[in-house]
Amino acid sequence: MNVNLEEAIEILERTPQTLKQFLSGLSDGWLQCNEGEGTWNAAEVIDHLIEGEKNNWIPRLEFIFQEGESKPFPPFDRYSHLHEKGEKSLEQKLQEFNTIRTQNITKLKSLVDPALHLELTGTHPAFGAVKASELISTWAVHDLTHIAQIVRVMAERYRTDVGPWVEYLGILKK
Amino acid sequence: MNVNLEEAIEILERTPQTLKQFLSGLSDGWLQCNEGEGTWNAAEVIDHLIEGEKNNWIPRLEFIFQEGESKPFPPFDRYSHLHEKGEKSLEQKLQEFNTIRTQNITKLKSLVDPALHLELTGTHPAFGAVKASELISTWAVHDLTHIAQIVRVMAERYRTDVGPWVEYLGILKK
Repeated sequence: MNVNLEEAIEILERTPQTLKQFLSGLSDGWLQCNEGEGTWNAAEVIDHLIEGEKNNWIPRLEFIFQEGESKPFPPFDRYSHLHEKGEKSLEQKLQEFNTIRTQNITKLKSLVDPALHLELTGTHPAFGAVKASELISTWAVHDLTHIAQIVRVMAERYRTDVGPWVEYLGILKK
Repeated sequence: MNVNLEEAIEILERTPQTLKQFLSGLSDGWLQCNEGEGTWNAAEVIDHLIEGEKNNWIPRLEFIFQEGESKPFPPFDRYSHLHEKGEKSLEQKLQEFNTIRTQNITKLKSLVDPALHLELTGTHPAFGAVKASELISTWAVHDLTHIAQIVRVMAERYRTDVGPWVEYLGILKK
């Protein structure tokens, strides 16, 4: 097992600022592109990350600590952010993500004593028994998967433009 | 065709700071992990990006403008950075990448008049005729592919730690 709380937090605390650095001020061409019907643009990915901060990671961790394996986690709609027609700018979303993530890292540190809590288990509605350490690892890797998604979506925009180099660009492999 | 010079530069100018924001100060566990024998860790990816700034993008663009299709580009060793046993820290590498990229963006802007030069062609040793616009698009997508690589390499470190959630994490799909 590689997970330890401090190292997982290193990822969690970098993601909002990394995305702000990368996305802030980009042209609409980059921000509105997606991979086709039913896929997300960068702003929709940020909405999804905010939604996870509100309804997924910390609430499920608290559920593990309160309920153990006695009841499954309340269901979490991974697409709920798509139902909201927000008026917020990307800059506001990036700020909101940063703020709620900072609060959640503070909560994580206060909730979890790594010597006592990482092996505690809850019940995932699809997977059955899961450990607190697995939830925390997943939270960090979930950040990484969505950073990768954002850059992949943007690369897709230049698929034709790169000409024959498409062959050398791993991110455009289908 | 989606490429335009200003929008390609938006990516090129963000990559060094984005990587600095993400990688600076990370534990060795994150910085030294790779995807197994023969694969790169984050610092090796930065070395490769620096190498491209020195020997690939601007030199090839200048070659197109000087030689047209008359001679193929001088060959470029995509693995040359692996032969150098550097003593530099990751922080120094990130700084070097930022400095040389900033210089190269200045050169790019002075070299290329989008109204005149994007359709000019050179000869790639493997692909044959390629356009300046394709080289510039590739430069930007090359940044994106290596950002994606860095986060994928780091995600791999937690493959086992995420437990059953591996099923939901696209970045861990093989």
